[in-house]
Amino acid sequence: MAKNKTIVMKFGGSSVANTEKIDNVCNKIIYAKKNVGNVVVTVSAMGKTTDQLIELARSVTSSGSRREMDVLLSTGEQVSIAMLALALHERGYESISFTGIQAGILTDSVHSEAKIIKINASRIVKELKDDKIVIVAGFQGIDKEGNITTLGRGGSDTTAVAVAAALHADYCEIYTDVDGVYTTDPNIDANAKKIERLSYDEMLELASSGAKVLHLRAVEFAKKYDVVINLRSSFNENEGTWIMDDINDKEKMEKPVVTGVTHDNNQIKVTVFGLKDIPGIASKLFGLLAGQDINVDLIVQNVSEENIATISFTIKGEDLDITEKTLERLKENIDYSKIDIDEEVAKVSIIGSGMQSHPGVASKMFKILADTGINIEMISTSPIRISCIIRKSKIKNAVKVLHKGFVTETDNI
Amino acid sequence: MAKNKTIVMKFGGSSVANTEKIDNVCNKIIYAKKNVGNVVVTVSAMGKTTDQLIELARSVTSSGSRREMDVLLSTGEQVSIAMLALALHERGYESISFTGIQAGILTDSVHSEAKIIKINASRIVKELKDDKIVIVAGFQGIDKEGNITTLGRGGSDTTAVAVAAALHADYCEIYTDVDGVYTTDPNIDANAKKIERLSYDEMLELASSGAKVLHLRAVEFAKKYDVVINLRSSFNENEGTWIMDDINDKEKMEKPVVTGVTHDNNQIKVTVFGLKDIPGIASKLFGLLAGQDINVDLIVQNVSEENIATISFTIKGEDLDITEKTLERLKENIDYSKIDIDEEVAKVSIIGSGMQSHPGVASKMFKILADTGINIEMISTSPIRISCIIRKSKIKNAVKVLHKGFVTETDNI
Repeated sequence: MAKNKTIVMKFGGSSVANTEKIDNVCNKIIYAKKNVGNVVVTVSAMGKTTDQLIELARSVTSSGSRREMDVLLSTGEQVSIAMLALALHERGYESISFTGIQAGILTDSVHSEAKIIKINASRIVKELKDDKIVIVAGFQGIDKEGNITTLGRGGSDTTAVAVAAALHADYCEIYTDVDGVYTTDPNIDANAKKIERLSYDEMLELASSGAKVLHLRAVEFAKKYDVVINLRSSFNENEGTWIMDDINDKEKMEKPVVTGVTHDNNQIKVTVFGLKDIPGIASKLFGLLAGQDINVDLIVQNVSEENIATISFTIKGEDLDITEKTLERLKENIDYSKIDIDEEVAKVSIIGSGMQSHPGVASKMFKILADTGINIEMISTSPIRISCIIRKSKIKNAVKVLHKGFVTETDNI
Repeated sequence: MAKNKTIVMKFGGSSVANTEKIDNVCNKIIYAKKNVGNVVVTVSAMGKTTDQLIELARSVTSSGSRREMDVLLSTGEQVSIAMLALALHERGYESISFTGIQAGILTDSVHSEAKIIKINASRIVKELKDDKIVIVAGFQGIDKEGNITTLGRGGSDTTAVAVAAALHADYCEIYTDVDGVYTTDPNIDANAKKIERLSYDEMLELASSGAKVLHLRAVEFAKKYDVVINLRSSFNENEGTWIMDDINDKEKMEKPVVTGVTHDNNQIKVTVFGLKDIPGIASKLFGLLAGQDINVDLIVQNVSEENIATISFTIKGEDLDITEKTLERLKENIDYSKIDIDEEVAKVSIIGSGMQSHPGVASKMFKILADTGINIEMISTSPIRISCIIRKSKIKNAVKVLHKGFVTETDNI
């Protein structure tokens, strides 16, 4: 490695949960400082700190002003940056910590779910020129009135990528408890292999269809600002998975058709029966659900005679309560006969930017599932992803046969 | 009380140590909001938080960069302000929290012992105009580069007084676990009475000679900016002690000669024997001690024949190690025969601005002590204070007889 590079290293809460782990993180930072050049570190709150602070707040309030919750929660990362800077000083390395405000991370004013608008990195740049290791609190920023904001769960990934973008860093290392992104969940299929390289679009589809390894917004940010991400383990030296743009068409051609198989058990299928007055009914239904911030995933609509329709859609498990309440209220505006909630479904997806140039991927997927006796209840596709809703009891089997058919036996297309 | 006043209320860490206590603090704040008008609250870190954070830092570092310690420790107050704002919201009161940075508290750059330079209170004023209760983190500020600073132990008192000065507040209430300032320590003499009113100078002398009730720098700040302080209890409704300027000479005349009797057991008497070469020797000795930030209190110098001197002085208990080391090094520059360390001493003081116009107070003090069989080893005086170093074993008795002679029997002058 050349010594004139700039990198951003991000460590999650479990990587700094105790003294021993902080020491391990220091090893990685010091190694990078010696071998790479400019090092900026982004870090989350130690261990379970954020949960403990939420618990503390609940002892005095049931609702909780979001502005004040952000003031409270942002202390978690502030403790981490100070601890890491102190530990690096102890090892003889010059380092300086910055809170979100000090790092110049400007966000919108949506407390607890703020989005980064821009980063004024001049102070970071100054300290890097002084050869210091700069440590930036993840997950937090300020709005233009100077209020403390937080970016929501997983926001430290976004901070790391945004800082890397602002510094035009060579790459952004995101340390986690796995070796990288896998072709499927190794807990389900022991044949899962680490993926060496992914495009942003593939990573976005993987993240949004069940792979929990990287925060969706961080990938969106990386794609927008062309930040190269290296996702790797805190606990070993393996190189991990690189996430970056496809460089050229030749590379694209040589890629496997299917990069990964994901699954998502956190799906609930909602079916609305006996919907009358078809024109505009679907948009009305989904408009109202969207107004409640309910994320609807797959949709199937069957229209019978006499303009009576059945609409099925999937939602995330945590949105069930609000969905039921919204549908109840809906009865005043929309005429339907009954609602069915089915929690025994799951989603299996295959993802790969290679499939854009390979017709027949979908039909092969359906055939594999059919041959295994797995019934497909709903289907959705993007140019680089095909997802099927199936019975939850079949999900492990579906992952295995699809992984075997598309990844392990790659010459099988 | 009129409803157009502005007050600052300060609560220490023990007042917000748990949910129940936070609720009690909310009662006091809401009462003030209803009855006074504009309310600004300054609060310390909850319970033992600061000690716990210091403990946490010690797990990774032995020395500890003072800048990073300030980043770490300032989270304690940040948690408190958020918790208090959340609790007030829960009770239906509009409130907003500010960290040191957000409250515009500019300090010098002496990390861990920073001094407030000025407060840009425009944001506080704006929120007060919007009828909000403003909650300001005690103990912290920023320097002109935007680094987080802390004011040192007891710094929240100073924050409260400084905010009161910046807002030209009508007064500053400092809540503590005692009812006010007492004529002496009630644990030693049950006849101790609460003092209704004190001048700044009296409070300064009391604080610096053993009364631990209020931080010295806060009083200095209050004196400089003419901030009226009301020191009172978190746990009852008693009015507490008012600390303000003497309004006129008549008031001064009517004041008791001695306002309070204090004692300080944290004294060590150091005696340097056989000092040669008298001219300039004392200034050399004390100059070197001052250079190590050792606070020397009382000094006695005896010169015998042939320019051989013995110098005794007192220091605080925590300065013993550094004093011994400094005196050891001193041997190279200054010729002395031996050093004696006496930890069995204590200081008793009488304080009162009334004594300025009453000669004979000192002789009465010495007589009372002599009549009780207490030997005076060292004496120091200011216009409103007389202090004596005596044996530590006699200190309780000394406090009692002086309190009886000067306070309980006030017509005894």
